[in-house]
Amino acid sequence: MASSSSLSISQAIVAGALNHRGSTNSSDRLPLRSFTIPTFSGLKSTTSAASCPSRLGSARRRLCRRLAVQAASVETLEKTETTLIEKSVNTIRFLAVDSVEKANSGHPGLPMGCAPMGHVLYDEFMKFNPRTPTGSIVIALFSLPDMDACFSTLCFTLLATTVSGFVHFLNFLWELALYVFGSLCGFAKEEDLKSFRQWGSTTPGHPENFETPGVEVTTGPLGQGIANAVGLALAERHLAARFNKPDNEIVDHYTYVILGDGCQMEGVAHEACSLAGHWGLGKLIALYDDNHISIDGDTEIAFTENVDLRFEALGWHVIWVTTTIGYGSPNKSNSYSVHGSALGPKELDATRKNLRWPYEPFHVPEDVKKHWSRHVPEGAALEAEWNAQFAEYERKYKEEAAVLKSLINGELPAGWEKALPTYTPESPAEATRNSSQQCLNALANVLPGLLGGSADLASSNLSVMKQFGNFQKGTPEERNVRFGVREHGMGAICNGIVLHCPGLIPYCATFFVFTDYLRLP
Amino acid sequence: MASSSSLSISQAIVAGALNHRGSTNSSDRLPLRSFTIPTFSGLKSTTSAASCPSRLGSARRRLCRRLAVQAASVETLEKTETTLIEKSVNTIRFLAVDSVEKANSGHPGLPMGCAPMGHVLYDEFMKFNPRTPTGSIVIALFSLPDMDACFSTLCFTLLATTVSGFVHFLNFLWELALYVFGSLCGFAKEEDLKSFRQWGSTTPGHPENFETPGVEVTTGPLGQGIANAVGLALAERHLAARFNKPDNEIVDHYTYVILGDGCQMEGVAHEACSLAGHWGLGKLIALYDDNHISIDGDTEIAFTENVDLRFEALGWHVIWVTTTIGYGSPNKSNSYSVHGSALGPKELDATRKNLRWPYEPFHVPEDVKKHWSRHVPEGAALEAEWNAQFAEYERKYKEEAAVLKSLINGELPAGWEKALPTYTPESPAEATRNSSQQCLNALANVLPGLLGGSADLASSNLSVMKQFGNFQKGTPEERNVRFGVREHGMGAICNGIVLHCPGLIPYCATFFVFTDYLRLP
Repeated sequence: MASSSSLSISQAIVAGALNHRGSTNSSDRLPLRSFTIPTFSGLKSTTSAASCPSRLGSARRRLCRRLAVQAASVETLEKTETTLIEKSVNTIRFLAVDSVEKANSGHPGLPMGCAPMGHVLYDEFMKFNPRTPTGSIVIALFSLPDMDACFSTLCFTLLATTVSGFVHFLNFLWELALYVFGSLCGFAKEEDLKSFRQWGSTTPGHPENFETPGVEVTTGPLGQGIANAVGLALAERHLAARFNKPDNEIVDHYTYVILGDGCQMEGVAHEACSLAGHWGLGKLIALYDDNHISIDGDTEIAFTENVDLRFEALGWHVIWVTTTIGYGSPNKSNSYSVHGSALGPKELDATRKNLRWPYEPFHVPEDVKKHWSRHVPEGAALEAEWNAQFAEYERKYKEEAAVLKSLINGELPAGWEKALPTYTPESPAEATRNSSQQCLNALANVLPGLLGGSADLASSNLSVMKQFGNFQKGTPEERNVRFGVREHGMGAICNGIVLHCPGLIPYCATFFVFTDYLRLP
Repeated sequence: MASSSSLSISQAIVAGALNHRGSTNSSDRLPLRSFTIPTFSGLKSTTSAASCPSRLGSARRRLCRRLAVQAASVETLEKTETTLIEKSVNTIRFLAVDSVEKANSGHPGLPMGCAPMGHVLYDEFMKFNPRTPTGSIVIALFSLPDMDACFSTLCFTLLATTVSGFVHFLNFLWELALYVFGSLCGFAKEEDLKSFRQWGSTTPGHPENFETPGVEVTTGPLGQGIANAVGLALAERHLAARFNKPDNEIVDHYTYVILGDGCQMEGVAHEACSLAGHWGLGKLIALYDDNHISIDGDTEIAFTENVDLRFEALGWHVIWVTTTIGYGSPNKSNSYSVHGSALGPKELDATRKNLRWPYEPFHVPEDVKKHWSRHVPEGAALEAEWNAQFAEYERKYKEEAAVLKSLINGELPAGWEKALPTYTPESPAEATRNSSQQCLNALANVLPGLLGGSADLASSNLSVMKQFGNFQKGTPEERNVRFGVREHGMGAICNGIVLHCPGLIPYCATFFVFTDYLRLP
C-alpha cells in the first residue's frame, strides 16, 4: 500500500488576474490543463518542473517546480541525492505519529500525507529567524508581538486541515513545525512535542493564538482558515500599496494556506475565495490537500464538483495534485481510520518497516538535525537584512516609516479619541446609524489602520468612510472594503486582517438579523 | 432608456449529469457555449429557440424555447400577435408598481425586469387549479394542506430575489402572482393588492408561510431560497423513486426557483447548489435574475466571478441571459434607486408614457383578464386528470397509495410511538448519541417519511438509519442523506423537504458547536 503515491500536492494560486465575468478567455489566465502536475500514481522519478506556468510570478513558479521535484524525489525512495530530504520528511512523519501515539489522541493521517509539502515550504520557501520567535521575521507558526518581521518574509498561514468534516486547527502542522523548528532550531523543546495534548502543555490538540506562544491564528471549524488567510493577504496587499516605494518594497510577502476537502465544501470558504479572486490577491497561495477521504468515507459520497474549474471561475490559477492520507501505513492509509486516532503499536511498527525507519520514537537523525540547523544563521541574516532595509526606509521616508511602525506595533496616535464628536442629552435626536457614521468618519481621519466595510449594505448602515475610495484590485491602497453579500466570509476575513498586525483595525457591518450568518468567524 | 433590453433571463438547469470530478469532458453535459441565449441588446425580434439544447428534457427544452421567444416578443414592442402578451406583461409590471406606489414602500425594480419571466412560467408552464388554492394541484404560491396536487404539477418555488444585498422574500412575485391569480382567477381579491404592506393585510412585504394563506415557503436572507428549493427538488426525486410505477408516474413535477446576484454570493447558496449538482436533481430549474445591480452599486464592485463556469463546475447545465432592474422607468431603470423605493408620481407617469400604458392604477385590461381566465377550466381539468390518475394508482397499488397518501397528508401510522425503546432509571448508562441512534433506527422502521443525515459526521453523531442506503443520484429511493461539510445548506435543504409535504420528516445532525453555522436556515 505504502508503495503507492506518497506525495501529491494541489496548489491553487490566486490569479492577479482579470475580471472575467462571463468569459473564460483571459490572456492573464493560464489555460487550466497546461500546467496540471501529474498525480504520480507510480513511483517514477518524474519532475514536472517544466510544466510550471511561465506566467506565474517567480516565487510561485519556483514553488511549483519544487513541489513537483519534491513529489518525485520523495516518491521514488531511491538512494539518490534525495536521501537526506526523504529522511527529513520521514522524520516529520514519525514525529507526528509518535506524538499521537504517546498521547493516544490526535490526527496522524494528514501529517503522514502532507509532510513533503510542509517540508518544501519550511525548508525552502519561508524566511524566518528561528532564534527570535517573538520579534523576528517569522510569521509562520510563531506569534509576533513585534511584527516587523512579517513584512520581509513569506507569510505562512497554517490554517491546516486534515480531512473533511472536523474542526480543523493546526494540530498536524503544529506538531510538525513545533518539532522541526523547536528541536532542530532550539526555541521549542522536544518535551513540548512529547506532552502533546496533555493538560497544561503548550501543545494542545487545538491551538489557540491567545493560549500558546507561537500560534498566530486560532482556527476553527472548516472553512475559517482560508477565509482568515484572505484577510491576511488583503492586509499585505493594502500595506504594500500604501507604504512601498519604488526603491524600497518594505512590505512584500506571500500568504500560504492549506485547505482540505471539507474546507472546500463550506460556504464560508467559497465566499472568501470568490472575494480573493475578485481582489486579485495574487500573493495568496492555497495548497489544497485533496486526500479524497472524509469522515463519512470517500469524498465521492457528497463532493463531486469540479474544484479546479470552480476555482478558475473564481479567478484563480489552479494546479492540481492530490495527497494520500496516512501515507506509509500499510493497512490504514487512504482510509478514514487513519484520520483521527493513533495508529496503535502494531500498525506503527508496520509503518516503520514499510518506510524503512529503524529509529526509536521521537528520534531525529543527526544529518537531519544538521540540515535544519542552517536556518539559524540564515534566519539571523534575513532578519538583519530586513532591519537594514527598514532603517534605510526610515531614513528616506520618515513620516511613512512612523505610520508603518505604529501599525506594526498597534500604537494608536496620541489624542485620537479627541476626534470623536461629542453628544449630550441636549443633542438633537438622530438615527443611531447616523451617529455611527459620524464617529466612523471622525476616527478614519486619525486612525491610519482603520479599514473595513459592509456586506452590501453600506448605503443602509452608513458604513463608508467618505474620505477614502474602495479597496479594489486596482486601488488596494484604499480603505473601504466591499464584501458583497457574504456575511460569514466578511467576519472571517476581518479576523485575518486584525491578526496580520495589531494596528490594522478592521470593521464590518450588516443588519442585526444577519449576525447569525456571521457566527464563528 | 426603456427602449433598451427589456427582458433577458438566465436559466441554470441542473444536469441530471455525471460525477465529473477533475474533468469537464462529460458526455452527459452540454457544452457551455453551445446553448447560450443571446442577450438581446437591441430590439430585434430574434428567437433563440434553435439554440436550446437538444439533450435537455422536453419540459426544460420547451421552457428554454419559450423564454427565448418571449424575450424577443416582449422586447420588440411591435404590434404583432405578441401584443396581448406584451399587454399582459405590462399589466403585471404596473400592478406591482402601483402597489408599491400606494404603499409608498416595496421593491418595484425586480417585477419590472422579471415580469416576462414570471409570465412565461405562470401562463404557460405551471399547472394549477386557481379555484382550489388549498387542496388543489397548485403548489406554486399557494399552500396545500392537502398536497395531492403537488404531485402532478410543476412545482414553482417562488423564493424570489430582487437585487443583491437584502432580505429577500416573495414580495415581488407575490404581488404579481397574487394579482394575476387573485384578480383574474378569483380566489384572491384586488383589495389584497391594494392593501400591500398595510397592517393587518394578507399581503405583507415579507410573506410568511404560517401567516398568509397561499405562501408555501417563508424565505429569508439571501441564499435561503435556492437552498429550500434544493430540498423541495430532493423530496420530489425521492418520492418519485419510491412510488412511481412503469405504468403510473404519480409523482412528477419540476421545481423552479428564482435567484439573484446577492443569492449567488452567499455561501449557503453555493453549498446547496453543489449538492444539487452532486445529486443530479435535474428537475430543479433555477432562473438567475442577473440584473447586475446590488445595494452598493454595480455588482462589479464585489462580484466578478464567472457564474456560468462555476455552475458548470457544480454539475449544472447553464443558459445565460440577463434582466434589467426597473425595466420601463426612463430615469431609474438599471440603477439601485429602483430597487427598494416607490418610483414617485413623476417617474411613474414617465414610465406609463414610456411603456405606452394609458390605464389607471390597478387596471387590468379586459383582454388580459380573458387571457388569464382560461386557467380556471384548464386547472380544473388538470386536477381532475391527476385525481383520476391517483385513483387508478390506488386501485392497482393499494399499499403504496396508502403510504403516499399518508406522506401527503402528514398522518403518522397508528401506534408509531410504541416502536421507541424504553429507558428507565435502571437502564445501563450510555452515551446519549447511542440512545439517539437507537431511537432513530426504531423510528425509521415505522415512519415512512423519515429521512435525513449529517454534515459529514454520521459516524460521530451516529445518525445513520442502518436499514437504509444513501440517497444518491443513482439511489434516490434511499433515506440516508449525506450532506458533506455543509451545515448551513443542510438546514435550509431540510426546511425545503418538510415544506414539500408534511409526511416527510427530515432530520439533520452535526456537533453542537456547528449549530452556529446552521442558523437562519
